[in-house]
Amino acid sequence: MSTTVNRVYRLKSRPEGSPVADNLELVEEIVPDPEPGQALVRTCYLSVDPTTRVWMSDYRGYMPPVPLGEVMRGVGVGQVEKSRRDDLPEGAIVLGWPGWQEYCLTNESSLVPLEFPFLPLPDPLPAPPSAFAGVLGHTGLTAHVGIDIGKPHPGDTAVVSAAAGAVGSIAGQLAKAAGATVVGIAGGHQKCRHVVDTLGFDHCIDRHAQSWREDLAAATPDGIDLDFENVGGEIMDAVLLRLNVGARVVLCGMIAAYNRFGSVGQHDIIQFVMQRASLHGFLVLDHLDRVAEAGAHLGELIAAGKLHYDETIVDGLEKAPDALSQILDGENLGKMIVRVSETL
Amino acid sequence: MSTTVNRVYRLKSRPEGSPVADNLELVEEIVPDPEPGQALVRTCYLSVDPTTRVWMSDYRGYMPPVPLGEVMRGVGVGQVEKSRRDDLPEGAIVLGWPGWQEYCLTNESSLVPLEFPFLPLPDPLPAPPSAFAGVLGHTGLTAHVGIDIGKPHPGDTAVVSAAAGAVGSIAGQLAKAAGATVVGIAGGHQKCRHVVDTLGFDHCIDRHAQSWREDLAAATPDGIDLDFENVGGEIMDAVLLRLNVGARVVLCGMIAAYNRFGSVGQHDIIQFVMQRASLHGFLVLDHLDRVAEAGAHLGELIAAGKLHYDETIVDGLEKAPDALSQILDGENLGKMIVRVSETL
Repeated sequence: MSTTVNRVYRLKSRPEGSPVADNLELVEEIVPDPEPGQALVRTCYLSVDPTTRVWMSDYRGYMPPVPLGEVMRGVGVGQVEKSRRDDLPEGAIVLGWPGWQEYCLTNESSLVPLEFPFLPLPDPLPAPPSAFAGVLGHTGLTAHVGIDIGKPHPGDTAVVSAAAGAVGSIAGQLAKAAGATVVGIAGGHQKCRHVVDTLGFDHCIDRHAQSWREDLAAATPDGIDLDFENVGGEIMDAVLLRLNVGARVVLCGMIAAYNRFGSVGQHDIIQFVMQRASLHGFLVLDHLDRVAEAGAHLGELIAAGKLHYDETIVDGLEKAPDALSQILDGENLGKMIVRVSETL
Repeated sequence: MSTTVNRVYRLKSRPEGSPVADNLELVEEIVPDPEPGQALVRTCYLSVDPTTRVWMSDYRGYMPPVPLGEVMRGVGVGQVEKSRRDDLPEGAIVLGWPGWQEYCLTNESSLVPLEFPFLPLPDPLPAPPSAFAGVLGHTGLTAHVGIDIGKPHPGDTAVVSAAAGAVGSIAGQLAKAAGATVVGIAGGHQKCRHVVDTLGFDHCIDRHAQSWREDLAAATPDGIDLDFENVGGEIMDAVLLRLNVGARVVLCGMIAAYNRFGSVGQHDIIQFVMQRASLHGFLVLDHLDRVAEAGAHLGELIAAGKLHYDETIVDGLEKAPDALSQILDGENLGKMIVRVSETL
């Protein structure tokens, strides 16, 4: 029986605040060949998302936390290396949950509490494989579903935080296509220019500028009808204080809270009463049945040159912890991806 | 031309934190007789509500703050003393916005930005007049509308904070009538006993007990499907951390924030993502067209002995500031009313 040498990141300790190198341990392990009904998947493009930080915490989440000692959980695109499963032939490109490791045996349910951790992608692929770890995968679906919940209308002013990120960048373009005036919030002058010049938002507020509150007010003279919220904290409060009567907040995430669950306060939640506003939390996992619909829609827009997506790709599994820190510090542009290996 | 001596509370300064005696000034003034198209209303039952504190603040609210120097804003029941208005005959009992004063000339729009500050009540009155400053007036309507938004179902666990207050006490009984298991949260053992024994809630958590978090967990073994939120702060966070997937939060108010707008933090708003939950802020002023519907519904329940309401009545306009402090400190049981004079 042959075997494969695998490099694996295991969760060693739960981060207090920002994740540090010591929270994850990179180890070499042997993966046996697949047994009947199993396939061995080689990880190609590993998605690193703000929610990755959630899985490291034992704060009450939407999935059980990654147990200490377990392989770090992660979504990604892989390629079937060896197979004893008819639905996953050797060479197939698959989307699923390989985790932070170079190889993964399917049917290892410890990584993720879902019934089907891998799905084969179309052959031939209609787009570069990395796109399926982002805009044509879960982050594009997140933007698609969130905009469907928020329903931007012509005349609305929509604000999107983390506007240069994987979800915010797509959500803002979809809101713009729906006819809303779209104001992004991002960190840094360069990102803000990109959000306006390349992504086509109407304005982008640099949250690092001292004048960011005044800039937000100036960019939303008619108030805010829709907030596609990815960040939380003082930025969200500032948005709440400009909500119009009947406004909707689509709560996609709160990056500002993930390093300090339970200690970042929202101070202006009462604005939901003052403005008779509503907040809708959602989770992409509830909408996986719409991934084909979203992928087709976004794929068409991309093909027509009407939707731009960015990727920040780093090379090598060993860069994954650093990629996570970059995401949490807002240093990425668009989708953060770790290229663990190439598809063949 | 005859005149009437009036005692008036004018807002002297905006409270920092809890309102103090010095924020309001009680002055004697002369009210002229009504001119054609005016009526002079004698204040009988003045409602004091948590939202009274909102009107004293210049935090961004749902109405302009009471200007400094102006008569303090207030809802109440009055009686027409002199009239030169056909729709408000002398002797009529009226519901409206008399403000914190003994007499009020109608058509004085400075008190409230509504077109019709007074409406005549049915003659003969189907209930004691004070009830129209509470359960058959705006606070009953608030509970009625909020429960309609939250839609408790049989099998749901519903939590109601400020459960012994004017709105919470009615909302909880309506949720119970809809088949939900209802858990109140109130301050003090005596109030909690009243909430269970007299109002018929299934449980009531004493927020003054050291074990309140554990008590809340024990009373909601199947999680929380609906939160009728009146308080905010750490109590709301504890509820958020027990929400079920798909739960609804009806945000009626946040008493805990009113003395310190912008500085009481909610630390677990991310639970709206984790549990795919929604929050719905609402304001009774948007639903005044349903006051007759709500009054008829609640009046029938009261007549049938199926709805209990409490009033805390204090005598004399000069007690109004103290009544407000009691409300903000949670010392009232049910509706807090200042009896300024009797209806004749």
